[in-house]
Amino acid sequence: MTVGILGGGQLARMIALAGIPLGQEFVVLDPSAEAGAVRLSHLLQGAYDDPALLKKMAQQAAVVTYEFENVPATAAKYLTEHTTIYPPAKALQIAQDRLVEKQHFQSLGIQTAPFAAVDNLDGLKQAMPSIGYPAILKSRCMGYDGKGQVAIKSAEELTDAWHKMQDAPSIVEGFIPFQREVSIIAVRRVNGDTVFYPLSENTHKGGILRIARCISNDPLQTAAENTVLKLMESLDYVGTIALELFDVDGQLIANEFAPRVHNSGHWSIEGSETSQFENHLRAILDLPLGTTQSVGFSAMVNFIGNVPPEASVLAIPHVHLQLYDKSPRKGRKVAHATVRCDDEQRFNDALTTLHELATQFDDS
Amino acid sequence: MTVGILGGGQLARMIALAGIPLGQEFVVLDPSAEAGAVRLSHLLQGAYDDPALLKKMAQQAAVVTYEFENVPATAAKYLTEHTTIYPPAKALQIAQDRLVEKQHFQSLGIQTAPFAAVDNLDGLKQAMPSIGYPAILKSRCMGYDGKGQVAIKSAEELTDAWHKMQDAPSIVEGFIPFQREVSIIAVRRVNGDTVFYPLSENTHKGGILRIARCISNDPLQTAAENTVLKLMESLDYVGTIALELFDVDGQLIANEFAPRVHNSGHWSIEGSETSQFENHLRAILDLPLGTTQSVGFSAMVNFIGNVPPEASVLAIPHVHLQLYDKSPRKGRKVAHATVRCDDEQRFNDALTTLHELATQFDDS
Repeated sequence: MTVGILGGGQLARMIALAGIPLGQEFVVLDPSAEAGAVRLSHLLQGAYDDPALLKKMAQQAAVVTYEFENVPATAAKYLTEHTTIYPPAKALQIAQDRLVEKQHFQSLGIQTAPFAAVDNLDGLKQAMPSIGYPAILKSRCMGYDGKGQVAIKSAEELTDAWHKMQDAPSIVEGFIPFQREVSIIAVRRVNGDTVFYPLSENTHKGGILRIARCISNDPLQTAAENTVLKLMESLDYVGTIALELFDVDGQLIANEFAPRVHNSGHWSIEGSETSQFENHLRAILDLPLGTTQSVGFSAMVNFIGNVPPEASVLAIPHVHLQLYDKSPRKGRKVAHATVRCDDEQRFNDALTTLHELATQFDDS
Repeated sequence: MTVGILGGGQLARMIALAGIPLGQEFVVLDPSAEAGAVRLSHLLQGAYDDPALLKKMAQQAAVVTYEFENVPATAAKYLTEHTTIYPPAKALQIAQDRLVEKQHFQSLGIQTAPFAAVDNLDGLKQAMPSIGYPAILKSRCMGYDGKGQVAIKSAEELTDAWHKMQDAPSIVEGFIPFQREVSIIAVRRVNGDTVFYPLSENTHKGGILRIARCISNDPLQTAAENTVLKLMESLDYVGTIALELFDVDGQLIANEFAPRVHNSGHWSIEGSETSQFENHLRAILDLPLGTTQSVGFSAMVNFIGNVPPEASVLAIPHVHLQLYDKSPRKGRKVAHATVRCDDEQRFNDALTTLHELATQFDDS
């Protein structure tokens, strides 16, 4: 069975590593011949909306998936019409536009921060009384890792903030004074079966995820599962999904979702019985989903900009390294490592050591 | 770092799957373009002793390893002289000849079954009084999965048995009335560091391994570790090694060793903190070895001849499938699956179901 993937970066790479033992072959569409999944797949090199390449992909792949949500609408449309694309195009449409996404949450009764659409400086000024300060102005489309976002602390900053957006259609959101950022990864199979991973507790810095920690038996687990289930059903979803949430005094506030495997679920490779990558493939190929329960304590640490020397990482007990074959660059996710251990104290010690090492080599 | 592998079958495939996350690239020498590791590596297609291909491999690979012990002596010699080959050629020399292997065990004070070299029918007849019945006649070289072996129950069978060996230099071994077959997998790094896996309890049928089960805290663990350590040190060993042993009333009797990753250690992918494949690579690249402790209960079941439908395997909870991309053929190992679970009862239930499924599709 050949699976197509739009994008050949680290997510495609980890999908392929999970699928090869299951006998799958991969065809990847990516502009770069250096992409991390290339050595594990057949590469179609070019633009994501190149009609000739999309045609080849539709011919070669029984099902196509993607590793990033900014798939061009024309590509999603073509693949929907000429093969099968999962998660479905509807999930892409909604996830690509922060305003539509928030409105979709609202329509499902899922709580969000206060928000308003903003198309010009006047609109921003009019919206602020109901949003309140501090707030965050975000471009509706194409943002990731904190890009395309400006914090606004007071009315004096409105003009500057709007100029930074360069007239991009935007959304302004009230700042939520949360206790924790968490995410829930869930998977829905073609036949409608679903599984949920334990909550991930996430630490960001500079808009980039740094640590994602698997939390077993979190008191908010059931509430998070109910929320993401509602979301998946509303989208006729198939595949792995990640829903980012704020924990505000034990209430969950939805931030955004990603219609794909997600950085906050990388610990599932070692820390769950079946990884988010394998379950994504099982889901889109309509195979039975694997159990998702946690295996001991686990947490993932991202390496940003640089990877520490391999021997230093591997010298830490209970650590698993995942390199992405990406060259060092400021602010770039180049690798991650996961600590997994059955013993809580040894787990905490190893995580502390790993995080210190990552911080030392951080370039973000 | 590029690693060369002689042989591109399932062991090379699982080595590559373990090494790609660590940033390694692979070049594989194999006669077949259909070999299971081909999609994960650069293929040098041809004979294992092809001088031009060995030259290319020595140029491309910083270190070369192998997935089978019948590496031609000329190839091992060339690679030793022109690059680095691990495990070292000495381990190959000894493992390739059952007589030399048994004599090596003897020289280290490691207990074996009674044995004698046999070069003709007269020699066989002369040896039998000291060996006793029943016995097993084995070709000294090139046997695997029970091939090249004949059981001898009484003196009347000697002539027939010898004819079946087709005059191949042989060894006759007394039959050991063992309670269990176990193996110990160990790993020795370039710098001499060693780690040991929990014992594997192995069930064979028709000379082919069927089930390998990880046994934590076996009373014979320390004795097995001491034995394999002595063996590794005698060979200046580097890499993963497997030593097969008989448990006879709590005494360990050495059967044979394999200077490579081994079928009885496949459960380590999910059932140990670091798999035998990853630790093999860490060892030969002189990187810190990973911890080997067991993660819950685990056991591996081989699929011989045929693979059951993928959905039937994946429907069993706690099961991980590993396909080798090999076409079905009588008696051929085409895939395996591992059950891993923290709960003993659920583990046993899943293993029973998996074994029944494997038996149903068995063609051996």
